[in-house]
Amino acid sequence: MKDDDNATMHAVLKGDRRAVARLITRVENTARDGDETLRAVFKHTGKAYRIGITGPPGAGKSTITNKLAAVFRARGGSVGIIAVDPTSPFTGGALLGDRVRMADVELDDGIFIRSMASRGSSGGLSRKAAEAADVLDAAGFETILFETVGVGQSELDIAGAADTTVVVLVPESGDAIQAMKAGLMEIADLFVLNKGDRPGADHAVMSIKMILGFRPHNDTTWMTGVLKTQANDGKGIDELAAAIDRHREFLVQTESLAQRRQARLRGRIRAIVEAKLDTHFWTPERSQELDEVLSRVVSREKTPYDVADDLLAHFAGRTT
Amino acid sequence: MKDDDNATMHAVLKGDRRAVARLITRVENTARDGDETLRAVFKHTGKAYRIGITGPPGAGKSTITNKLAAVFRARGGSVGIIAVDPTSPFTGGALLGDRVRMADVELDDGIFIRSMASRGSSGGLSRKAAEAADVLDAAGFETILFETVGVGQSELDIAGAADTTVVVLVPESGDAIQAMKAGLMEIADLFVLNKGDRPGADHAVMSIKMILGFRPHNDTTWMTGVLKTQANDGKGIDELAAAIDRHREFLVQTESLAQRRQARLRGRIRAIVEAKLDTHFWTPERSQELDEVLSRVVSREKTPYDVADDLLAHFAGRTT
Repeated sequence: MKDDDNATMHAVLKGDRRAVARLITRVENTARDGDETLRAVFKHTGKAYRIGITGPPGAGKSTITNKLAAVFRARGGSVGIIAVDPTSPFTGGALLGDRVRMADVELDDGIFIRSMASRGSSGGLSRKAAEAADVLDAAGFETILFETVGVGQSELDIAGAADTTVVVLVPESGDAIQAMKAGLMEIADLFVLNKGDRPGADHAVMSIKMILGFRPHNDTTWMTGVLKTQANDGKGIDELAAAIDRHREFLVQTESLAQRRQARLRGRIRAIVEAKLDTHFWTPERSQELDEVLSRVVSREKTPYDVADDLLAHFAGRTT
Repeated sequence: MKDDDNATMHAVLKGDRRAVARLITRVENTARDGDETLRAVFKHTGKAYRIGITGPPGAGKSTITNKLAAVFRARGGSVGIIAVDPTSPFTGGALLGDRVRMADVELDDGIFIRSMASRGSSGGLSRKAAEAADVLDAAGFETILFETVGVGQSELDIAGAADTTVVVLVPESGDAIQAMKAGLMEIADLFVLNKGDRPGADHAVMSIKMILGFRPHNDTTWMTGVLKTQANDGKGIDELAAAIDRHREFLVQTESLAQRRQARLRGRIRAIVEAKLDTHFWTPERSQELDEVLSRVVSREKTPYDVADDLLAHFAGRTT
């Protein structure tokens, strides 16, 4: 590790906010897989509890995330928030920057908020969010909240790769079938029906419960609960924090927490391998080879499968 | 090619519906990349015009797709529909099966409808949808409609990998910012505001137009239009078909159609290579190696990056 990397590392471990911010920026902007500092950071992780919060656009996830952060913060621990904001295709920037979000929560040294843009990084996004969380974890943040909009596989992956995953719906989300469509049901440890004072709220809660009832379960299965909140008024947030505590307790008692985390690490390793394989494979020469042969695929002289085989034939690794 | 594969192939080329259905089922269920029949099928593709239709759940995509299919069908050509239905995590089946959908359109030999489930196939889904379309293309269907819910990268990829991509919104979709959040704006060649008689419709159209105005464009750029429809009553469908015709004409005149199709084939080849590399790499031995070392990552003795490096070091291909 270079001297200034070493200095960054020490500052991060001491919880220096500016060093944390700087290192996360590096995580976001770097294509390199696991530089020395990130390797060093990783060895100091595993202490933070990671909570994913997801749901359709407009469900009130940011409000819930911010108020939940305040509850955990009030207990004395520090809280990190990683908000994955889908990016506007026209501006190239995140729709909600850190500044906008900061207005929602008190300026508090114990709460660190970071927005990450989701644009153009589909596959790498989960890895970058996990690495940003590693930085916060190493810096001593006890609780890390991932907030993502639940409208994409990579966004769901991020929220799902947490110790506890909370799915936020509103009565207007339509019936529970729509929620299932978005793939939210299978990652939820807890459901929150926000804007619970609106018409249709009780009906929506009942629909979700009914559908949850169809899931296979036994005595040792966590029973996914459904809570009502009115996040704008802070109603139900304490109950949500308590439900997250109960889920955490359940995971610890059943030894599922270790299993979950092991599975998560396995997924991370596979993703790193996949990215590196891709980088190794697509040398400038192979990209050129593909470009040159492409017109013969357009003319249907060759098929995409033939070209893939040809490209792979020159890759020594294929037979080992 | 085996004899019965050969027979299937000939039946597909003659447009035999049962052979088409059988081969698409094989595409759906096979993990193999490009068997002989698919290679043979590919050589007969490139004639169909592919249209993607996407948007949030509940926007009326199925109705629009079916009615649009009827318009194209009335012109004399045959029409294939590939509907990617998000799968219920509890049943394992597609939410809307072929049967349910069939009730919506007339039973007509010139329209072929196929539902594909999206569950659990994230990366492979685009490939399978493209291969199913290849089968229809080879079978002589002039127009192919892909219908996907616009709530996930892979679903967007499928709709985006078309010659013309239509994004369907409703006044209730909320403001245009929500649409941008879902990444819909950047793949749309045409916008449809369905349920155009509802309150807020004109406002929504104006918002979309305003945002589209921010996109960089010049004289040779296609100007993405916004159409209003009331698909349930069939209103606006003829206009939508005409707008698709105009976009097609534009692509042909500017030679963008060939470019689009070439880029699409490049993407398909890269995806095939990626999948094959992954298969080559994850031998039972390497999976076991990963399993064995995982506890040392949990204990933070090793990092995910170290493990990935170790695994790759034994892969001869990495240095070529």
